Amino acid sequence: MNAFGRLFRVTIFGESHGESVGVNIDGCPAGLSLTAEDFVTDIERRKGGMQKGTTPRKEDDLPIFKTGIFNGQSTGAPMTILFDNKNTRSGDYEKQRSVPRPGHADFVAHQKFGGFEDFRGGGHFSGRLTVCLVAAGVIAKKLAATANVNIEAKILEIGGEADLDKGLQKAIDAKDSIGGIVECRVSGLPAGLGEPFFDSAESLLSHAVFAIPAVRGIEFGTGFAAARMFGSDHNDAILNMEGQTATNHAGGIVGGITNGNELVFRIAIKPTSSTPKEQQTLNWETQQTETFSVKGRHDLCIALRVPVVLEAVAAIVLADLLLMEQHIKRVL
Amino acid sequence: MNAFGRLFRVTIFGESHGESVGVNIDGCPAGLSLTAEDFVTDIERRKGGMQKGTTPRKEDDLPIFKTGIFNGQSTGAPMTILFDNKNTRSGDYEKQRSVPRPGHADFVAHQKFGGFEDFRGGGHFSGRLTVCLVAAGVIAKKLAATANVNIEAKILEIGGEADLDKGLQKAIDAKDSIGGIVECRVSGLPAGLGEPFFDSAESLLSHAVFAIPAVRGIEFGTGFAAARMFGSDHNDAILNMEGQTATNHAGGIVGGITNGNELVFRIAIKPTSSTPKEQQTLNWETQQTETFSVKGRHDLCIALRVPVVLEAVAAIVLADLLLMEQHIKRVL
Amino acid sequence: MNAFGRLFRVTIFGESHGESVGVNIDGCPAGLSLTAEDFVTDIERRKGGMQKGTTPRKEDDLPIFKTGIFNGQSTGAPMTILFDNKNTRSGDYEKQRSVPRPGHADFVAHQKFGGFEDFRGGGHFSGRLTVCLVAAGVIAKKLAATANVNIEAKILEIGGEADLDKGLQKAIDAKDSIGGIVECRVSGLPAGLGEPFFDSAESLLSHAVFAIPAVRGIEFGTGFAAARMFGSDHNDAILNMEGQTATNHAGGIVGGITNGNELVFRIAIKPTSSTPKEQQTLNWETQQTETFSVKGRHDLCIALRVPVVLEAVAAIVLADLLLMEQHIKRVL
Amino acid sequence: MNAFGRLFRVTIFGESHGESVGVNIDGCPAGLSLTAEDFVTDIERRKGGMQKGTTPRKEDDLPIFKTGIFNGQSTGAPMTILFDNKNTRSGDYEKQRSVPRPGHADFVAHQKFGGFEDFRGGGHFSGRLTVCLVAAGVIAKKLAATANVNIEAKILEIGGEADLDKGLQKAIDAKDSIGGIVECRVSGLPAGLGEPFFDSAESLLSHAVFAIPAVRGIEFGTGFAAARMFGSDHNDAILNMEGQTATNHAGGIVGGITNGNELVFRIAIKPTSSTPKEQQTLNWETQQTETFSVKGRHDLCIALRVPVVLEAVAAIVLADLLLMEQHIKRVL
Repeated sequence: MNAFGRLFRVTIFGESHGESVGVNIDGCPAGLSLTAEDFVTDIERRKGGMQKGTTPRKEDDLPIFKTGIFNGQSTGAPMTILFDNKNTRSGDYEKQRSVPRPGHADFVAHQKFGGFEDFRGGGHFSGRLTVCLVAAGVIAKKLAATANVNIEAKILEIGGEADLDKGLQKAIDAKDSIGGIVECRVSGLPAGLGEPFFDSAESLLSHAVFAIPAVRGIEFGTGFAAARMFGSDHNDAILNMEGQTATNHAGGIVGGITNGNELVFRIAIKPTSSTPKEQQTLNWETQQTETFSVKGRHDLCIALRVPVVLEAVAAIVLADLLLMEQHIKRVL
Repeated sequence: MNAFGRLFRVTIFGESHGESVGVNIDGCPAGLSLTAEDFVTDIERRKGGMQKGTTPRKEDDLPIFKTGIFNGQSTGAPMTILFDNKNTRSGDYEKQRSVPRPGHADFVAHQKFGGFEDFRGGGHFSGRLTVCLVAAGVIAKKLAATANVNIEAKILEIGGEADLDKGLQKAIDAKDSIGGIVECRVSGLPAGLGEPFFDSAESLLSHAVFAIPAVRGIEFGTGFAAARMFGSDHNDAILNMEGQTATNHAGGIVGGITNGNELVFRIAIKPTSSTPKEQQTLNWETQQTETFSVKGRHDLCIALRVPVVLEAVAAIVLADLLLMEQHIKRVL
Repeated sequence: MNAFGRLFRVTIFGESHGESVGVNIDGCPAGLSLTAEDFVTDIERRKGGMQKGTTPRKEDDLPIFKTGIFNGQSTGAPMTILFDNKNTRSGDYEKQRSVPRPGHADFVAHQKFGGFEDFRGGGHFSGRLTVCLVAAGVIAKKLAATANVNIEAKILEIGGEADLDKGLQKAIDAKDSIGGIVECRVSGLPAGLGEPFFDSAESLLSHAVFAIPAVRGIEFGTGFAAARMFGSDHNDAILNMEGQTATNHAGGIVGGITNGNELVFRIAIKPTSSTPKEQQTLNWETQQTETFSVKGRHDLCIALRVPVVLEAVAAIVLADLLLMEQHIKRVL
Repeated sequence: MNAFGRLFRVTIFGESHGESVGVNIDGCPAGLSLTAEDFVTDIERRKGGMQKGTTPRKEDDLPIFKTGIFNGQSTGAPMTILFDNKNTRSGDYEKQRSVPRPGHADFVAHQKFGGFEDFRGGGHFSGRLTVCLVAAGVIAKKLAATANVNIEAKILEIGGEADLDKGLQKAIDAKDSIGGIVECRVSGLPAGLGEPFFDSAESLLSHAVFAIPAVRGIEFGTGFAAARMFGSDHNDAILNMEGQTATNHAGGIVGGITNGNELVFRIAIKPTSSTPKEQQTLNWETQQTETFSVKGRHDLCIALRVPVVLEAVAAIVLADLLLMEQHIKRVL
């Protein structure tokens, strides 16, 4: 399924080198004001183009509103937003059809779809589709804001370095790609979001987060460090009737339910699979392994573009939960 | 929702100190042989009672087959299995009604359910319900085995120590509880399980995994370590037409889809929230913080009991995906 | 799937001659008062035992609350209610294993579940499971009542006769079973329930209604008669700002959405498949057709027992929609 | 929700007088050949333009393939197909903004979406969106055909007349719109489709059918006539091991499961709500009832255009069930 959400439901579609990619949002309350300008900041953040280490491919990425918006407001009917793929160079990929790129979905897509997949530039598996997540996230964040919920993500480290320039320089020096860690913090969340057991807040957030390509792990609050802690150190003392805690090792979720404190979680992003370095892979035609080197346009550190996408999927999950718990109205 | 799965759907219910807990499994193919003996090993593993550091509470935990099994085989109709709660001592908890235990769901349950929640022993939020997951897992593992898929989890470290006795002794010495890390490995998986984007294999696995109480993080393959790696080091070279790779940093999943290699993932388990050490918490009646100390029966290290539960939720996810991709038949 | 509902989710399970049948209800708001007495009236109505033409099989049918109810109120956790099967006589059926009864699910169950189905008394396909629907309906009706919604169903005709005794006498005279028509009316519904297109109010209601065995048709408002009407006769003139209409040919639903008028729909119930009359069927063992006559306990007119079941499924659908549109609170 | 289906999932979106309407199909197996020509026949059938009694509005209605199709075949990724709205005349409707048309969704849309709805020409509630259903149906029928399943619908009567011209002439003479009955027959269906209780074949079919605007009732096999029959007359004698029956009063479904015989069901279509005749309705601005007469382009008998839409929704349901029961492969 390319869809997610119970009341606020997001469906994404498209291919990297097809005509366009897009997103459908069903269940958005009526009366949310929405203009193309609302999308500019987040779409620009996703491009990450001003930074060292991001791909030179640029799209205008103007959201094309097809349905569900009327007179600048959501109508309650499903919204469809398209983004044209203007700047594609399929020639880069077609000649490599028989050489599945290591770390990319080329091989699994071929196995799963029997060779019928659109293989150009990763096809449907491309990171290009994160622009659809970002667009849905813009809407979800505006919804969440009506309940005073604010969502922000930022990069914590690149290649193990909190000084991001230093981390990036490592990759540039090594002529290689590199990974990173991104953290998301959400303030203003009411207690009570999430449902035991299978729809715990962590279950839903991690489900959505792993829709982002290149994510290899997620941790809430102290996360993996908790595995080395004593209970008396890890527990957060409750201070008052609102549930405020002295520390926030839980990261805002206890028993799968938000507890009214700040929500904090981190994700690990692997190094971009496309690296300038030479690699070994199999050639399907010759059935021989061969040396392979990526010539296309690619990011040295895909983590740089992830924060806005992470905010988006978090917002999609939280908008749904806020609707379910009736903190967001069906008509605004 | 207390339910999970698209074709193989598991619903769990019950409370720690109610009459019983149980599980309903809808969509299990007809013709799977099932007897009470099939459940013994995994249910005993969950009890973990032979080990230092696990709670003295013991239940017989005989599965009570209520529906869906006939002449020792699944009928195709929904299966219901109950487990009686024989060994409950509600008195332990009732006197502490107004003192929400730090790290437990007491506070959030009260917020979410407005004080109507069954608060005895954690009620519906209790780890007691993992016996239901284990039971569903027994069935899911038998199903997966019909497709030659084998699932195994084990503890990697306790309190940061690969020598588990040493880790446990730390907690005993400190008179405190302690966390740990559990790893799951799955062999025999076909390539092609999982669906872009929102039903990636990682999305579904992590969704189910966070239904297990006390999980604070999950990582696939190299996981968080990937954030510090170069791309040329992280990529797994494809060796042959079956997709076998030279290394397995991806942990068996690329582009959200299984690639035919071993599936490997790890989870972080926080220290048991109930610790013998004194802690601060709020008293709802007095509205004052007070000193609090757990007297009930509890595990020093809940991670010890997690491997069989982790196998169970992994099996639930994989059985569903194997059915969807038609590697398991609807009638066996 | 044996489950239905988006926010208020009902799962039913069990077999006619198994130990028990039951129902799980997930998503019921916390704080709904529930005692065994709440169930007495509807469960007695389902038995229909005082009337001519209903089966002599009697069960005490006391609801056994297993989970989700504490101190006489819903806790917000999933509720499980069982009904024991005390009065089963499997011997009636086992000898007829190789003779699929016409009109019953014996043949299709065998085809679908490959011979692994519990065939005793119709197994999972038995009308016995409607007691589970009725139990869920009791809860759903109590929820709907918190939004001032009232649901009532009654028999309109038996064997074409509005005088029900006369219709029933037809069947008794003919020593045969007979069908009937049941109507459901719902007052107090707010406008705005249902969602275009696939979750129209009619879509959801008919989906749930066809879970009732023996239903062969459903019509809303003027229903099939509308196919013979002119538009100017069929349209309901809107009288005021509340949407009250001069007539109610639409039966309270326009464009798939409730319009604030009374909801009215009817269902057709086929004659009970088990009839005292001799019939032809196939013997699987001999592979010959043979003459067959039902000796067990059966209703002459199953429609007599349907009204309370129809109310139940309507209530299940409407409780879900009322929750979704926030006319029912998550904590009462 | 504007989506339907478990494995083969269809989402529709758009408004009558927006830029376009469209459909997303997720879960279609890879390798289905698809060209624009495949859609011509059914899209032309939906227009119904050659007949008396259908609206003069014409769209080219060329399917615009946006995603999921590559080299003339489905890729396994979600397919998106748009249809442009070229021939809209919003002016017709805007002046009537304050006068909700009787029988149309104007009033309920306003209630549900708080006045934010796109009201032009019925907006999202317009019959225009059935072109999206038809497009999904073309694909679903091609899928069903790979399992040798054939679906055909036709008009049975107009205004109570089996002679359709006669029925239509009635409406022309009366200067009014008129209703009709449409029947769908499906051959080649395997036994075993559908699931007790809530996903019975009738449940799923009726759910999808009531997504078609103007449907007021549905009946399977003998349908409402069954309510007047004796059991011995209604039961279908099983003739052979394949489940073939001597009669087909059940319409191919017993116990909610297909029995291998022809599937037969009928739906009632109300007269077009837009009729040339004068009607009474409320004016929201003046809060007075006033006389109202439709001037736009409309069908006298919308039933004429329904058969191809009915085939489409039936095909959508059956493709999903055929996939679930593994009669259709995931890669063709």
